[in-house]
Amino acid sequence: MQINNNYANLKDSYLFKTITQKVNAYKTANPDANIIRLGIGDVTRPLVPAVVTAMHVAVDEMGQKESFSGYDDGGVGYPFLREAIAGYYAGYGVAVDPEEIIVGDGSKSDISNILDLFSPDARVLIPDPVYPVYVDTNIMAGRKITFMNGTAQNGFLPLPDDLENAENLSEPGFTPDIIYICSPNNPTGAVYSREQLKKWVDFAKKSGAVLFFDAAYETFVQTPGLPRSIFEIEGARTCAIEFCSFSKLAGFTGVRCGYTVVPKELSFNGQALHAWWRRRQTTKFNGVSYITQRGAAAVFSPEGFSQIKENIGYYLENAKIISATLKELGIRFTGGENAPYIWLRCPGGMGSWEYFETLLEKANVVGTPGAGFGQNGEGYFRLTAFGERENIEEAMGRITNL
Amino acid sequence: MQINNNYANLKDSYLFKTITQKVNAYKTANPDANIIRLGIGDVTRPLVPAVVTAMHVAVDEMGQKESFSGYDDGGVGYPFLREAIAGYYAGYGVAVDPEEIIVGDGSKSDISNILDLFSPDARVLIPDPVYPVYVDTNIMAGRKITFMNGTAQNGFLPLPDDLENAENLSEPGFTPDIIYICSPNNPTGAVYSREQLKKWVDFAKKSGAVLFFDAAYETFVQTPGLPRSIFEIEGARTCAIEFCSFSKLAGFTGVRCGYTVVPKELSFNGQALHAWWRRRQTTKFNGVSYITQRGAAAVFSPEGFSQIKENIGYYLENAKIISATLKELGIRFTGGENAPYIWLRCPGGMGSWEYFETLLEKANVVGTPGAGFGQNGEGYFRLTAFGERENIEEAMGRITNL
Repeated sequence: MQINNNYANLKDSYLFKTITQKVNAYKTANPDANIIRLGIGDVTRPLVPAVVTAMHVAVDEMGQKESFSGYDDGGVGYPFLREAIAGYYAGYGVAVDPEEIIVGDGSKSDISNILDLFSPDARVLIPDPVYPVYVDTNIMAGRKITFMNGTAQNGFLPLPDDLENAENLSEPGFTPDIIYICSPNNPTGAVYSREQLKKWVDFAKKSGAVLFFDAAYETFVQTPGLPRSIFEIEGARTCAIEFCSFSKLAGFTGVRCGYTVVPKELSFNGQALHAWWRRRQTTKFNGVSYITQRGAAAVFSPEGFSQIKENIGYYLENAKIISATLKELGIRFTGGENAPYIWLRCPGGMGSWEYFETLLEKANVVGTPGAGFGQNGEGYFRLTAFGERENIEEAMGRITNL
Repeated sequence: MQINNNYANLKDSYLFKTITQKVNAYKTANPDANIIRLGIGDVTRPLVPAVVTAMHVAVDEMGQKESFSGYDDGGVGYPFLREAIAGYYAGYGVAVDPEEIIVGDGSKSDISNILDLFSPDARVLIPDPVYPVYVDTNIMAGRKITFMNGTAQNGFLPLPDDLENAENLSEPGFTPDIIYICSPNNPTGAVYSREQLKKWVDFAKKSGAVLFFDAAYETFVQTPGLPRSIFEIEGARTCAIEFCSFSKLAGFTGVRCGYTVVPKELSFNGQALHAWWRRRQTTKFNGVSYITQRGAAAVFSPEGFSQIKENIGYYLENAKIISATLKELGIRFTGGENAPYIWLRCPGGMGSWEYFETLLEKANVVGTPGAGFGQNGEGYFRLTAFGERENIEEAMGRITNL
């Protein structure tokens, strides 16, 4: 039997699963502890009324012969949703053809499954610290990964110039095939400027690489002028694929919907990746629930959009409360301004998992150890602003009194 | 750039997409034609009331802070659904641990994505004719495929003994790593007996191969004694993975839910595939919509189950009507008794696509050319019983009058 032995090279279990196991063990030992979770990036605000209403209508449509919807033809998303997404892009000045938008069941699936289009020999460049899925999915395929260092010195925003400091650069003259960029960044909350992204676009084009731009947190960008889409950058349409999600935009973590944008002019070795990605999805996927797609489209209705903006504002206010506490305590951090994540230096020189245990045991607060995001994350810690207000305030009080 | 050049080896576009294109072209040229679609295996009955009610409740839960559900922890399905599925198995005497059940967004995704766990060098054995997804997904991974012939002689149910007649058997002493079995079969409607499946289980164990058992149509099995699950066969727990779907069971083609059963004792080279599949799903997938999972669980409630049984009965009655017409016309066929598919010999020695064009143009009826399912499908044609009764009757009238 020829199994994929690359799976045996995966380290430990997936970060958030490990955290869940540790928290569950603590809860079993301390059943009365009132644990506040500021760890996994899961939302807490319920679906907004416009989405709920749209989904009820869709459920009823599915229950009637005349309005029942079966397979989403081609499995790439209904035109009504792809057009609504294109309208969302147009709203901030980015022109995307609805045909270039492929609807999927979430960014995690999309950014994992798109790797199908590339050879196991493709060379991958990944920032460190980073969302662990980028790393694990490439290990599963046996790809060689080169890491680029995100550090306090570069504001956790590595640039092509930093490549000379990359780890595992075993070949002289190394050029990557696939470059991952996440901005606003998970886990650091840092956001690339237009000028910085232009450097990455230029570098990708020069290297003949594809840029995977993970824009899952674009809706949190508040500072005018900071880019939300890679397609705001000149030249990106011939080198970049963008990944977006309704998870953080509209609280769809339990509903599952995301989308990719693969420009029609993006091709390598004469092969249009847009056609390949469509073929991949049409063959291996059967589309997203009609009910989900109706809910997702309602996000872009005037009332839906104002309702989700309110939720985003709520989370950003949470981030301010966390930031204020950290400032008071003299703890250094990035993020929280244009992102739901606050990335802090563990106080007292503590290691990431040491601080995780300290917070869990002494404050009953769960965060995410920075070391789980890569070796540059050691000594750092991620808090998320997705909690409920009273929990955030209570958690900050406990941390202040530690 | 190192792209996955295997994609360039895919033939034409995906079968059903090709049919859609041909039908659309015909419709454009003949806008008044009243086309009846008995082609793609999509259901037409709406979701049953018990499912609709459960989904409304779930949508409301998602709209309230107290009952909102975010990420499905681990992305493998909520315990309430995995336990309900285990109960469904228990209902016909098959013991499956809920922990062995992994909920996904449909059989197409599951049976495609599970290939991640195997090497590109794994040797694949696929019956012909067959659901094209088995073939295309392995071409995408660059795997060598050996076909085994399903023919009128073996009732379209090839057995290990037929392997000596397999195509592309380039190596002497060939043994497969992965064997696909679909029963009730898509496209032929044929169903393996227990004795026949026992031969496959024995062969898989002897070869050290894994058996992918696609049970998407198990709910259509009517004849007492015919197996619905591979786990009805002794020894299957150490060699088989089962794939099931709510698509045909409960009309979820537009809702998206399926599940796999990977027994805990199934391992190769010391690696438990259950743990690997969980790891794959936890890393590359984020679970199925909470609303969908609540709807799926309602299928197994007493009222839900009696409602879906009524729909299955409706489709099987359709199949009887189609079968009766074909018998009258002296057209040979298999299926339709324990499956929603009727697999017929094209009359007058016509080829598959020739008969497709004839039916489309002369009867405005769309079916699926057998040749789309493999070379042994040439000269055959698939009709599905998923249409609405009046359409089925109208279509049969038109075919009778051809």
